[in-house]
Amino acid sequence: MPVTASSRIPALKNIATRLRIESVRATTEAGSGHPSTCCSAAEIMAAIFFAEMRYDPAHPEQPDNDRFVLSKGHAAPILYAAWAEAGIIDRASLLTLRRIDSDLEGHPTPRLPWVDVATGSLGQGICAAVGIALNARRISSDYRTYVLLGDGETSEGSVWEAAEVASLQRLDSICAITDVNALGQSQPTPWRHDLDALAARWRAFGWHARIVDGHDLPAILEALDEARGTKSRPTMLLARTVKGKGISFIEGKNGWHGKVLKKGDEVDKALRELESQLVPEEAPLPAVPRPKQVPRPPAVDAPPAAPPYGRGEHVATREAFGDAVARLGAADIRIAVLDADVKNSTFTEKFEQQHPDRFYENFIAEQVMIGAAMGLAARGAIPFPATFGAFLSRAYDFIRMAAISHLNIKMVGSHVGVSIGEDGPSQMALEDLAMMRAQPNVTVLYPCDAVSTERLLALMAYHPGPAYLRTSRPKTPVIYGPDDVFRIGGSNVLRRSAADVATVVGAGVTLFEALQAYDTLRQDGISIRVVDLYSIQPVDGDSLVGCARETHGRLITVEDHYAAGGIGDAVAAAVADEGATVHRLAVRDVPRSGKPEELLDRFGISARHIVDAVKQVAV
Amino acid sequence: MPVTASSRIPALKNIATRLRIESVRATTEAGSGHPSTCCSAAEIMAAIFFAEMRYDPAHPEQPDNDRFVLSKGHAAPILYAAWAEAGIIDRASLLTLRRIDSDLEGHPTPRLPWVDVATGSLGQGICAAVGIALNARRISSDYRTYVLLGDGETSEGSVWEAAEVASLQRLDSICAITDVNALGQSQPTPWRHDLDALAARWRAFGWHARIVDGHDLPAILEALDEARGTKSRPTMLLARTVKGKGISFIEGKNGWHGKVLKKGDEVDKALRELESQLVPEEAPLPAVPRPKQVPRPPAVDAPPAAPPYGRGEHVATREAFGDAVARLGAADIRIAVLDADVKNSTFTEKFEQQHPDRFYENFIAEQVMIGAAMGLAARGAIPFPATFGAFLSRAYDFIRMAAISHLNIKMVGSHVGVSIGEDGPSQMALEDLAMMRAQPNVTVLYPCDAVSTERLLALMAYHPGPAYLRTSRPKTPVIYGPDDVFRIGGSNVLRRSAADVATVVGAGVTLFEALQAYDTLRQDGISIRVVDLYSIQPVDGDSLVGCARETHGRLITVEDHYAAGGIGDAVAAAVADEGATVHRLAVRDVPRSGKPEELLDRFGISARHIVDAVKQVAV
Repeated sequence: MPVTASSRIPALKNIATRLRIESVRATTEAGSGHPSTCCSAAEIMAAIFFAEMRYDPAHPEQPDNDRFVLSKGHAAPILYAAWAEAGIIDRASLLTLRRIDSDLEGHPTPRLPWVDVATGSLGQGICAAVGIALNARRISSDYRTYVLLGDGETSEGSVWEAAEVASLQRLDSICAITDVNALGQSQPTPWRHDLDALAARWRAFGWHARIVDGHDLPAILEALDEARGTKSRPTMLLARTVKGKGISFIEGKNGWHGKVLKKGDEVDKALRELESQLVPEEAPLPAVPRPKQVPRPPAVDAPPAAPPYGRGEHVATREAFGDAVARLGAADIRIAVLDADVKNSTFTEKFEQQHPDRFYENFIAEQVMIGAAMGLAARGAIPFPATFGAFLSRAYDFIRMAAISHLNIKMVGSHVGVSIGEDGPSQMALEDLAMMRAQPNVTVLYPCDAVSTERLLALMAYHPGPAYLRTSRPKTPVIYGPDDVFRIGGSNVLRRSAADVATVVGAGVTLFEALQAYDTLRQDGISIRVVDLYSIQPVDGDSLVGCARETHGRLITVEDHYAAGGIGDAVAAAVADEGATVHRLAVRDVPRSGKPEELLDRFGISARHIVDAVKQVAV
Repeated sequence: MPVTASSRIPALKNIATRLRIESVRATTEAGSGHPSTCCSAAEIMAAIFFAEMRYDPAHPEQPDNDRFVLSKGHAAPILYAAWAEAGIIDRASLLTLRRIDSDLEGHPTPRLPWVDVATGSLGQGICAAVGIALNARRISSDYRTYVLLGDGETSEGSVWEAAEVASLQRLDSICAITDVNALGQSQPTPWRHDLDALAARWRAFGWHARIVDGHDLPAILEALDEARGTKSRPTMLLARTVKGKGISFIEGKNGWHGKVLKKGDEVDKALRELESQLVPEEAPLPAVPRPKQVPRPPAVDAPPAAPPYGRGEHVATREAFGDAVARLGAADIRIAVLDADVKNSTFTEKFEQQHPDRFYENFIAEQVMIGAAMGLAARGAIPFPATFGAFLSRAYDFIRMAAISHLNIKMVGSHVGVSIGEDGPSQMALEDLAMMRAQPNVTVLYPCDAVSTERLLALMAYHPGPAYLRTSRPKTPVIYGPDDVFRIGGSNVLRRSAADVATVVGAGVTLFEALQAYDTLRQDGISIRVVDLYSIQPVDGDSLVGCARETHGRLITVEDHYAAGGIGDAVAAAVADEGATVHRLAVRDVPRSGKPEELLDRFGISARHIVDAVKQVAV
């Protein structure tokens, strides 16, 4: 492809102009949006979409298409305009931007088949690009990943997590472009047009960095060409641009971020200016090059394996997870694991040992770990990012965007609750259930033993959409056998009699406290129902309602989690129409260091507290 | 202070050795902890605490003390050992490490008066150090801020957010040290001992960076001296160290992270080796230099001002917040505001205009915004970090640690819920209430109009501990007058009669939907109670229980938030013992772009849905 051929430049220039025109029209029609942000990127977009990328406009699902991520998601209108130019969407639809009946949303989401990940929270697209590029390696494709960032966006620390991982992984299939228009939302960026300062950062993080005039099409094409030829390192093109380029009265002006041109004289003047920039074309632009088509066998879900545990054996669920995911990885090449330097605590090192090519180390950088998982999931992998549950909170904005994107990421959080013991509160996940449950489409599972861990892991792997598995640090006895059945949205009643005075709902380590309370209460002639609520979202409403009705409307929940947003709230919501009472045992203060059993007792979630609660509500 | 005087070196060397000995003893006694991580930092700690920092060991509250932040919080034992050496704590107490009855926790927390912020989630301490250094400027103190990082920790993106802000703010009072021991938790760090690569990064981010042998005390002292003389730029000392230094059989070995020396032969051998490293001292070490004492007037809470709004006026709560915080800032110099380049959306630009010296711009970097607020709060400021509520999720791990630290940070999230409209789900906070409520000590307030915003802002400013104010984008009518009373943990019943068939609980924009539903139902002769639940945590349990009892045990909640963890769950928890039913109207799917009123209706939280719910439960 003779990308430097000058004959195509006028046609590309006209595309850039048309992208500006469509962006201005659409945002004015919508009454909101970011036309100035689109205008600075017009030549970059024209070059990438019509002279650089290889893709089949009719087949977004083609796995070898080059990928494009709009990390500066607020420039969505120019992305949509590029698709219209490529014939992917109808040009007339561009004027439906931001309407409730249109999929052309204010920021791109995967409702649109060409969008891999929702963007609009800055600094995330480049993390997803890392995962998309890793996926190319996983499926042995030569597709390249392009990602367009804003310059203000590079203040986000997540960008530098992505920079590091892309460099360590030698992802030379990534070509990132920063649209350096020197203006943020509310003020100039700190570096304005000091592109050398920006280039020094990327180089210090191991990237090939090149400065380019972002409105000079031959220069952009040459830079893209150079990026394509750069091996062992990702490339960052730092494009010097002017915000609002092409519209004289907003060019480079602060105060035009997220502001549309008013209908009437203002927009008419802008469109006249832009239209006057159309030039005669020397030659028609060749069609977009198609990717190589590589035949691949269809993916098949692995059949469930029998968990190799005997009842009464003591195994931590975190370790059972490590074994289970390694086993699943042997049966299904889509399974991938991502770590943030805790693989010897989460036991993902077992996966690494068996499947090093699908194990991605991010070092201590949780945002890019989740972001890369988002990218992998978007391209067909089934990624399991795993760290301490507490540190998933570091990536909550990414989890939020993964949920918005309905991505198939399978998060695993270990070391949850006060039961981790001596390391203290900074290492204890006590809000992870709340955080995950708040996202309406995240499946939340919480096994108590090795068998349920193995079963739930297999279920979550093949359940579409984001999911979270909560594992624990202490060893717990295996209580389930190979024939016990689990389902997403299910629960197990472990103790039941017609004389039950109340239902106690536990999960994970508290289930064993509940079973111990059952034994103690039996000695006093008191029967309780005990439920293992291994699926926190969706929750087994039918069973819980049934238990409530059969145990005098008395429910007691007990969780190694803070009181708000966890099991107590999930159970209360499930029985909200019943008029039942829900007594919640949970961690109600910031905990501290101590032995696990001391902490369970000190913070009110041990067997003794369950016994007291039963006697209080039911006797 | 002649820091290069060689006569003090043997005494400092012995301190380093004793710090190692105490760290080994304490962790072995505790049975868990990170002795190897302590050993690499021993000379650095000895130099900082006994030859560099100015502080009064008897007076942690002295505002001009130099500050030290242990960003690598897992090295807590050596921090405690340094305090014992300084006479701050009793040496014998070191052996209580990690016990439930000891405040010497596994990772440092502000239970200890010398700890400003809890650490243990990596990459946060340096963000707090930025705020601590900004505070020195605020109170015109010359105190310096020292912060010790691990090398693995610098993979965290938040470190680079701090790097950028410290550089932009020219915080030359910060001296950071990275303990480059080349080993992470589960493997060598990516750069091992390539200190030039690390130095290039810090220089590219505008810091003075210097490489130093981290076990060479004269070299460390000289580097600290140079840092103290470096103006307009923060300094990063990159200290080449050996993990486990001083204990021959663990030195530089992978697999010794977070592993203690076993009682018996193993620890005895280590202690013998360390003790053999004690040397004769040439001269006694001079006492730690004391800081300059600067008299300062005591802080006084500002009296509440009358909100300047008339009933029926239309004002967005986000704008009312901007005005209120600017007014409060005029009355109290402790009030500070932090932004992440959205000041023209959150309206903190009003504060910037009036109090530019207490307005801290972080550009698009929410983690350091919250982290710096933590540091400011730790040193007596009352900081208001404000951004879109959605983007506070970016800093959730910081919020978690701020809660563990019980810090006085006052977070403000704007643009919440589907009522922001066209920008789409990436910009909508729909999990912020869940996220904040999950932390047991975060106060959560949600005003519906300008008057309640002003009142709640003043209340939160002077309520100790972390707090969150949720503001909205749309303009809403002022419904409160200057005499209406608000309190943390309160609520207002706006419509009430003896004939009420149900209670509808709203807050923010949904309150107006509830009031509209009230009017509609009245036309059908149906009375409902309407509650403004402006305090979400703590919640007004007494009033809610009273309403439940007086309205047939029927509660309906309506919130511009996802269903889990928000107002519905808060209300259900408050009435959990009542046997009431709680019908929850909330956003149950990932929303999309559209007009605010269209989205309120599409996602089930408009007046029409409230009317339907009332008829369903009560008619």
